[in-house]
Amino acid sequence: MRDISERIRQIPLSPIRKLTPLADAAKSRGIRVYHLNIGQPDIQTPEEGMEAMRNIDRKVLEYSPSQGFLSLRRKIAGYYADFGMDYSPEDIIVTTGASEAVLFSFITCMDPGDELITTEPTYANYLSFAAAAGVKVIPVTTVMDDGFALPPAERFEELVTERTRGILICNPNNPSGSLYSREEMEMLGDIVRRHGIFLFADEVYREFVYDGMEFFSAGHLKGVDEHVVIFDSMSKRFSECGIRIGAVISKNKPVAEGFLKLAQARLSPPLIGQIVAEASFSAGHAYLDPIAAEYQHRRDVLIEGLRNIPGVNVVRPQGAFYVIASLPVKNAEDFCAWCLTDFSDNGETVMMAPAAGFYITPGLGPSEVRIAYVLNTGDLRRATDLLAKALRQYTD
Amino acid sequence: MRDISERIRQIPLSPIRKLTPLADAAKSRGIRVYHLNIGQPDIQTPEEGMEAMRNIDRKVLEYSPSQGFLSLRRKIAGYYADFGMDYSPEDIIVTTGASEAVLFSFITCMDPGDELITTEPTYANYLSFAAAAGVKVIPVTTVMDDGFALPPAERFEELVTERTRGILICNPNNPSGSLYSREEMEMLGDIVRRHGIFLFADEVYREFVYDGMEFFSAGHLKGVDEHVVIFDSMSKRFSECGIRIGAVISKNKPVAEGFLKLAQARLSPPLIGQIVAEASFSAGHAYLDPIAAEYQHRRDVLIEGLRNIPGVNVVRPQGAFYVIASLPVKNAEDFCAWCLTDFSDNGETVMMAPAAGFYITPGLGPSEVRIAYVLNTGDLRRATDLLAKALRQYTD
Repeated sequence: MRDISERIRQIPLSPIRKLTPLADAAKSRGIRVYHLNIGQPDIQTPEEGMEAMRNIDRKVLEYSPSQGFLSLRRKIAGYYADFGMDYSPEDIIVTTGASEAVLFSFITCMDPGDELITTEPTYANYLSFAAAAGVKVIPVTTVMDDGFALPPAERFEELVTERTRGILICNPNNPSGSLYSREEMEMLGDIVRRHGIFLFADEVYREFVYDGMEFFSAGHLKGVDEHVVIFDSMSKRFSECGIRIGAVISKNKPVAEGFLKLAQARLSPPLIGQIVAEASFSAGHAYLDPIAAEYQHRRDVLIEGLRNIPGVNVVRPQGAFYVIASLPVKNAEDFCAWCLTDFSDNGETVMMAPAAGFYITPGLGPSEVRIAYVLNTGDLRRATDLLAKALRQYTD
Repeated sequence: MRDISERIRQIPLSPIRKLTPLADAAKSRGIRVYHLNIGQPDIQTPEEGMEAMRNIDRKVLEYSPSQGFLSLRRKIAGYYADFGMDYSPEDIIVTTGASEAVLFSFITCMDPGDELITTEPTYANYLSFAAAAGVKVIPVTTVMDDGFALPPAERFEELVTERTRGILICNPNNPSGSLYSREEMEMLGDIVRRHGIFLFADEVYREFVYDGMEFFSAGHLKGVDEHVVIFDSMSKRFSECGIRIGAVISKNKPVAEGFLKLAQARLSPPLIGQIVAEASFSAGHAYLDPIAAEYQHRRDVLIEGLRNIPGVNVVRPQGAFYVIASLPVKNAEDFCAWCLTDFSDNGETVMMAPAAGFYITPGLGPSEVRIAYVLNTGDLRRATDLLAKALRQYTD
């Protein structure tokens, strides 16, 4: 019998899921696990979206247009206009989550064997989609001491080969929490223009920017319209991860036509999710602004808690809702596993994602974990307390 | 600026959509277009599914498990048990429509450059997904004179090379309407076993089998559990194409693990769709049986109408809800376009899908169209009447 494909065998186990069997075993022993490993917000979905779903009076839940409803694409275009970006509904394809935006982009813009440069630590699922598409990912390392900022242009350019098709960033960044400045973005714009390659910008955390910092989108860059492809999603913005509605956005006509071919092949994005998403936009700033403030507060509680633990290092993240923390252990994966198998305090423990799985270069980040601050502040305080206690008990 | 990928440029325009701009123009001139080109049923979604959607009382529309809810996978396993097939929830991954089942299978079971043998005329979107996955599709031609039955084993085996990874069938067949017999299926089982390759079976039209014929699934074959991968979907079964819920099913453990890696990369299938799908199974045979009877009736009305048109040839389909018809024209695409641009009768016209786009071998099927019989019988009678009138007026 034929083996499965080499490309699938290349895909590592998801770093946020590989310890799940241990967490399940802990729960079956009656232990409460505080999940700092996943980015599932506890924020309520906008009531406008829920109401729209309940009020669907169709008799047939039929296909919608492959590119998504025009009414939803208009809402998205209007939302971009509020950010000072000029995208028309024709530049927007509604996707099944940002995940599909990533996959469509990789397949449309790159052939098997082509190369994509991206920062590490990275969103691990990019690596799965790249493997699926046969694309080789070339890492540019960002480091905690530098706040996970982008390295200088030379570091990108020395990696450009004739197979390089693009640079991929996530901004604000999952997993590092860094936010790229206007200068960093303009540096990238300059690189992709000079080399004639794509700039893929995953901006699903666009609303989650703190301390009054400016968000500067790839869509704000001048003179690189042909190069820029934006991945977007309603999941985090409206706390509706389950509706699976995202978008892939580009002014590059051949690219948009490529997206449409793939969109037509998979027939249509989710009907009900589109209805929920469209209504959710009506929630507006009255919904979004308090959530950003809440996450900023959660971040501060988490960072304060982490900084009070001896040997733990973090940089205060400027966006998204993740932080990379360096722990005083040799191997964070062993420690995270131990927290689930051998540690508990008052019947409770904590689950984190070992960060090694977010690096592309083997051997990086052995002592680091990614922590998502999607829990309420009470739970976050208890979770950092558990981490502190666990570190005191743990011996490498 | 870099061009888009070669694999995307290879994807032809969708045969069911390439005439859409002409249809839109006809509609803007006030002409009513009878859509025989697409498979969007007019049947009502089960009320059980609609009710489940309206009654969702969650506060957060959050991620569901990547493999789909266990409760839904149990329902699907139970449904297979009713067909005499023994699949456990662990063999089933819930996908975003059968489309994602196709893509997951192509990526998991084949590497770029591998070969997949399939029948033509074929479901055109397979070709798009194969191009996306870098897989080469090798056609086995089926012909109208033979009722689009499978050719003998030699015809398949002479195409097997060292790059061949599998055989793909759609049963009952879209676009031909043919239903494969137990003997044909056992022939395929024998081939895939002897060559150690996969048998991908798209069975989304499983309920749509007419004249009391037996449906024999790839899942019924003995001794080829490692080889068989089934694509399934709720779309046609429950007339809920918009919820985007399908499944990919295999007892091959490495293959199932590969599917799970991709499923985890895209996080989760649609939440609300899963809730609708699970409830829809409760509608059961009281819902499904009258629909199959209705489609059989529609088929008979359509076939009678087509056979009354001079020069039109059809084979009565045994399943699904499509038929390939041969028209007395040199080029069916020109004729279908003409029906939208130059013909109308009483302000009405008809739209069909030129069948050439369903063939892989260039030059086949120039005079053929695919007709979907998803309209009610009154509309189907009028549509065949329009076709007859159009053919009388048309000169090549």
